Amino acid sequence: MAKTLITNGTFVTMDDELPIVVNGSMMMDNDVITYIGVNKAELRDLADIIIDGTGRCYLPGIVNTHGHAAMSLLRGYADDLNLQVWLEQKMWPMEGKFTKEDVRAGTMLSIAEMIRSGTTSFVDMYDKMDEVGAAVEETGMRACLTRGIIGYPVELQQAKLKEATDFARNWHRTAGGRITTMMSPHAPYTCPPDFIEKVVDAATQLNLPIHTHMSETQKEVDLNVQSYGVRPVEHLLKLGVFSRPCLLAHAVHLTDEEIAILASQHVHVSHNPVSNLKLASGVARLVKLRQAGVLVSLGTDSSASNNNLDMFEEIRLTALIHKGVSGDPTAIPALDALKMGTIDGARSIWLDHVGMLRAGYKADFIAVDMDQPHFVPRTDMVSHLVYSASGSDVTDVCIDGQWVMRKKELLTLDLERVMFDAERSFQGLLER
Amino acid sequence: MAKTLITNGTFVTMDDELPIVVNGSMMMDNDVITYIGVNKAELRDLADIIIDGTGRCYLPGIVNTHGHAAMSLLRGYADDLNLQVWLEQKMWPMEGKFTKEDVRAGTMLSIAEMIRSGTTSFVDMYDKMDEVGAAVEETGMRACLTRGIIGYPVELQQAKLKEATDFARNWHRTAGGRITTMMSPHAPYTCPPDFIEKVVDAATQLNLPIHTHMSETQKEVDLNVQSYGVRPVEHLLKLGVFSRPCLLAHAVHLTDEEIAILASQHVHVSHNPVSNLKLASGVARLVKLRQAGVLVSLGTDSSASNNNLDMFEEIRLTALIHKGVSGDPTAIPALDALKMGTIDGARSIWLDHVGMLRAGYKADFIAVDMDQPHFVPRTDMVSHLVYSASGSDVTDVCIDGQWVMRKKELLTLDLERVMFDAERSFQGLLER
Repeated sequence: MAKTLITNGTFVTMDDELPIVVNGSMMMDNDVITYIGVNKAELRDLADIIIDGTGRCYLPGIVNTHGHAAMSLLRGYADDLNLQVWLEQKMWPMEGKFTKEDVRAGTMLSIAEMIRSGTTSFVDMYDKMDEVGAAVEETGMRACLTRGIIGYPVELQQAKLKEATDFARNWHRTAGGRITTMMSPHAPYTCPPDFIEKVVDAATQLNLPIHTHMSETQKEVDLNVQSYGVRPVEHLLKLGVFSRPCLLAHAVHLTDEEIAILASQHVHVSHNPVSNLKLASGVARLVKLRQAGVLVSLGTDSSASNNNLDMFEEIRLTALIHKGVSGDPTAIPALDALKMGTIDGARSIWLDHVGMLRAGYKADFIAVDMDQPHFVPRTDMVSHLVYSASGSDVTDVCIDGQWVMRKKELLTLDLERVMFDAERSFQGLLER
Repeated sequence: MAKTLITNGTFVTMDDELPIVVNGSMMMDNDVITYIGVNKAELRDLADIIIDGTGRCYLPGIVNTHGHAAMSLLRGYADDLNLQVWLEQKMWPMEGKFTKEDVRAGTMLSIAEMIRSGTTSFVDMYDKMDEVGAAVEETGMRACLTRGIIGYPVELQQAKLKEATDFARNWHRTAGGRITTMMSPHAPYTCPPDFIEKVVDAATQLNLPIHTHMSETQKEVDLNVQSYGVRPVEHLLKLGVFSRPCLLAHAVHLTDEEIAILASQHVHVSHNPVSNLKLASGVARLVKLRQAGVLVSLGTDSSASNNNLDMFEEIRLTALIHKGVSGDPTAIPALDALKMGTIDGARSIWLDHVGMLRAGYKADFIAVDMDQPHFVPRTDMVSHLVYSASGSDVTDVCIDGQWVMRKKELLTLDLERVMFDAERSFQGLLER
């Protein structure tokens, strides 16, 4: 799109070196932000396209650091159940039937929902990942993708590891750099220790990070102690998982000692508050994690345990729940929650120059319609974005310099078709 | 609007005697629902107006059972602060400056936001209530209104009580029955016991219910024990508060004995989960309350501690947080949360024939646009409304048979003007 200038906007930069809120202009040259600051007449002469940002609040695109996009096909299929019943009787039997077409349909549905609600980058851990890679490539999303490997039955380990390795190698840094990859043993309780070590070896050879679920439930922690004599953090440490750059999903049940290890090993944590509440897993020790210096970002988990992909909800709940549970109304101020959803999310998945509105950074940003009653009065846009906004307030989304939504219209996918295909896939799963 | 028929819709009735979800038609004759059930050709002949409900999900209007509408003027003015600092240094000094015009501006802003997000009935406890009554009357909302009385300084008690009594008498059952009133001592910690008794006497004479804040914080409970030797429930019981129909806001900190008293006295509780988390008040014992048979409904509290009036958020959080905190994923299933936001809300404020879609009930209902990715696949509309929806999915709102929003356009107020007036009021408060 060459040189685009947005004038008269409100920019929530998330940049510690700039004011957090800048009223003025932003210029971008193809995929890179080249200016952010006060309105300047001379910028207009340099621009090929000028957009009036009046009434719009621009902020970095939201980063969703844990999910399983294809599982949106199971949204609302099973709620309010005991975790084992939900997983073993509802999720796994249906997921076992997923074809490539289903994975594509569910992933496209998720991408549509993510773009509409302001997410520009997402982590996806699933199966049949070539479908996911293709969906990301064609829709213009940014994503960090990984084939999650359950280590049982043992005789399938090698085939799955090869599939995961091939996917990670083939897709890393593709789609103009929008796609990166990781290696993923599914969880300590679903992979034998020696197999986790094999996945670590593969990640080392490919020079890729590791993403895994850990300590989502107390039961899982107890099982780890029972099986291996140590809690999950020490277990993964011993298996070399933290020798790689590592992103853990959930990490709800942690001791002080485990938090200290995660901090010293520079392990990142994806906090998934809605999913953790819905599955009754508990409330992560977020304040302690952050105090210890652990980089924490936010994720939705899948729509089967959420049941939407609106990251504004995760950001708000993060700002709310840790106050309520700790009894401290100053815990996780609005700005910290918004950082977790933007710049800290980008850093969590090792994205370079993504997550802030700053000259030199990637043009990954969204616009929110401020002319709505729930944003009045215009006291504090950071507060409004965290405590009052929802994903439906997003009007425009730009990723890597490409508009993927303008004025609420999706530009890189056919929404009617995507919804139709997803519904058809779900009906097919019911009938098979 | 005479006889209106909505055909081909999905109706979430909230009616225990009907299927919860009915695919078909609903007929209304002015302010009353006259039919709900399968599509029937003969209905078309009886209707003056026929609306195609394809792609729409209709449900009873949401009922918000605790709030302070005018305080939306202070949205985002003070967040993430210690409760006493927030109240004493931020809220009270600003509220002390509120003029009648400010109360009107803030209330109109809240009504606009409530209608847009699907709330059709609300409780409001504030000051200068004639302004609130007038705003409700002209916008077509349904509301249960009360002048909240702080019992200090003692010399102002009589004047405030007279004002509250006059308001309650003058406005009860006005606006074609859309407005009812209550009497409100603000809270046990802000009213001397003898004054609470006077308010009870006034409520008895007027034959009106009582609404009050109770046990929002642990500190307030401790203070009650220190001052009066008993916890708040026993205190209010002794003062005769429960001799009236009574709605308590918050009720976060309760013993088993207190819950038993509330149940035996048929006291209603308005649960305000977002506000309770944001102010770090804690998490109410909702599961216990409901098990004991207490009628619990949902409220937002004001936008100064929320910071929006989207009741879908309260409904979802109610379904989520009690699972997470109790460790039981079957706690508060989706349907129970939706009941609390609709029929139980209506019952909580003694509304007759409001809160369900049933023949003979008031035509208070809303429509949600189902043709969106976060409602795909079409597995379970109750789950989708609770776990996936937000207020922005609401397209149409009908109250007492009058459309107040059609296709997202507000019909009983000028939104631009309302936002302008609220912004101007807030700037005036800053400058005074």
